[in-house]
Amino acid sequence: MEFKEKYNFYLKEFERILECFCNEINCRPEILGDSLKYSLLLGGKRIRPVLTFATADLLGLERRKAVNFALAIELIHTYSLIHDDLPEMDNDDFRRGKPSNHKVFGAGNAVLAGDGLLNTAYSVLLKECKNGAEYISAAQFICDCAGIYGMIAGQSADLLHEHETSFNEATLNFIYENKTGKLLMSSVVVPSILNGGRCYSELKTFGRDLGLLFQITDDILDVEGEFRSLGKSIGKDEAEGKYTSVSLYGLDGAKLRADVLAQRCRAVLEGIDGDREFMLQLVDYVRSRKN
Amino acid sequence: MEFKEKYNFYLKEFERILECFCNEINCRPEILGDSLKYSLLLGGKRIRPVLTFATADLLGLERRKAVNFALAIELIHTYSLIHDDLPEMDNDDFRRGKPSNHKVFGAGNAVLAGDGLLNTAYSVLLKECKNGAEYISAAQFICDCAGIYGMIAGQSADLLHEHETSFNEATLNFIYENKTGKLLMSSVVVPSILNGGRCYSELKTFGRDLGLLFQITDDILDVEGEFRSLGKSIGKDEAEGKYTSVSLYGLDGAKLRADVLAQRCRAVLEGIDGDREFMLQLVDYVRSRKN
Repeated sequence: MEFKEKYNFYLKEFERILECFCNEINCRPEILGDSLKYSLLLGGKRIRPVLTFATADLLGLERRKAVNFALAIELIHTYSLIHDDLPEMDNDDFRRGKPSNHKVFGAGNAVLAGDGLLNTAYSVLLKECKNGAEYISAAQFICDCAGIYGMIAGQSADLLHEHETSFNEATLNFIYENKTGKLLMSSVVVPSILNGGRCYSELKTFGRDLGLLFQITDDILDVEGEFRSLGKSIGKDEAEGKYTSVSLYGLDGAKLRADVLAQRCRAVLEGIDGDREFMLQLVDYVRSRKN
Repeated sequence: MEFKEKYNFYLKEFERILECFCNEINCRPEILGDSLKYSLLLGGKRIRPVLTFATADLLGLERRKAVNFALAIELIHTYSLIHDDLPEMDNDDFRRGKPSNHKVFGAGNAVLAGDGLLNTAYSVLLKECKNGAEYISAAQFICDCAGIYGMIAGQSADLLHEHETSFNEATLNFIYENKTGKLLMSSVVVPSILNGGRCYSELKTFGRDLGLLFQITDDILDVEGEFRSLGKSIGKDEAEGKYTSVSLYGLDGAKLRADVLAQRCRAVLEGIDGDREFMLQLVDYVRSRKN
């Protein structure tokens, strides 16, 4: 199967699962369910569940074992986008080419939609805990990555340094590693935990570097991308004087750093036994993505 | 032991646990940890953990088994207050006599503090899951009570009907049962689940009614209370034309309804074997509380 074909295969599989999941949501009042589903079904690359499925295949783990973990990670990712877009946070009016959650449902409902998605993610994970110790460990890993020593720490640091015109590489790395890197890392580490810890440290390194790569290509796209393919505001970072890898290293420097990270990701994969072809191509896809 | 003495015994025990817990929080950036701790350590009646400890004692369950569940429930309760006080939600400037979280740390940090507390609650609960099936069930019960079919549904309905000048008893009951009742209910049901389900349905009924009673006395206090003892704005409901049990039943009607609920709570307790004295007095305390 070609890369694009296989990506779409994983993507479609996940979209099907997500749609089933959304169809079963029947909470009251209706606006609560509607706002959750609006953001969950906005589309997007679904790179985290694709990574989880692909890593499961790479390690020889049955995909069905990882399905609900992929779902929970996507729920957590989606909640973080809703809260991150709020006026008091990044104040973004667009997400994936559509009005962001609070533009459609209002800020109060957007806060609750995010809370609801985060809580629902743990509802999904707690159900998995009944399957055994490694399932509990996988849920704990996701929880750590999403929490106050992970994603939320990254968002907090991002907010704290938002209007600073200069801060150092260490701060930028802290933000990127935590805000984007850790949850993305969990999507490749979870299949390892479910598979008895096979290639655990390799996949941790891979996930962390891929997360950084993803964030840096995001910065590059904010300069070079187009609204049409990106689905969100362009040039926003520069207009707001936001510190990014582009403002730190320059555009060429950021591209060079992205190349180095992509190379490191490939090197880790080369050390893992199994059919690595798709994962290798996925690294190139993240490096050269247009959206 | 006298009622007040025993309440303070449970309260102090919980405060000690909470302080230990807070001392171990060392996340970066500092403002994230500070904002979590600010709201956690604002004090308050701690009625949920007191209920959990008292119910454990009533059922003959070792309190230490329920400690982390009491902690998780209080973390969830605290997150819900922070988000509920936000300008886009209830827009409350005071909580427990002190400026609310977003007045001290800003709305963006308050959103993250709430997210952080919710995620940390699940970190605490997932650790408990390793102890066995009944621990997982107890965690799931809390998750359901806090989620989109529980507390968040209640908050969403509250927001939806916020500016309506008339709505019916069923809507008010839905809001109260979900927004306040379910999480409070979980604090008495969890010890039952951890104790093999002893008095499960009785404690569910008791918790639901006590939650309703608690919310109705809250409405009464908004009319009759004093800022000094209550620590939050008074007369806010009426000034904002908010629909409450007082506007629905009138002040005397609300008091009558509170009396009926207190009586129902006492009746359930009478059917449970064990030392019920403290729990019976707790019902009277909630009925006649001044803060």
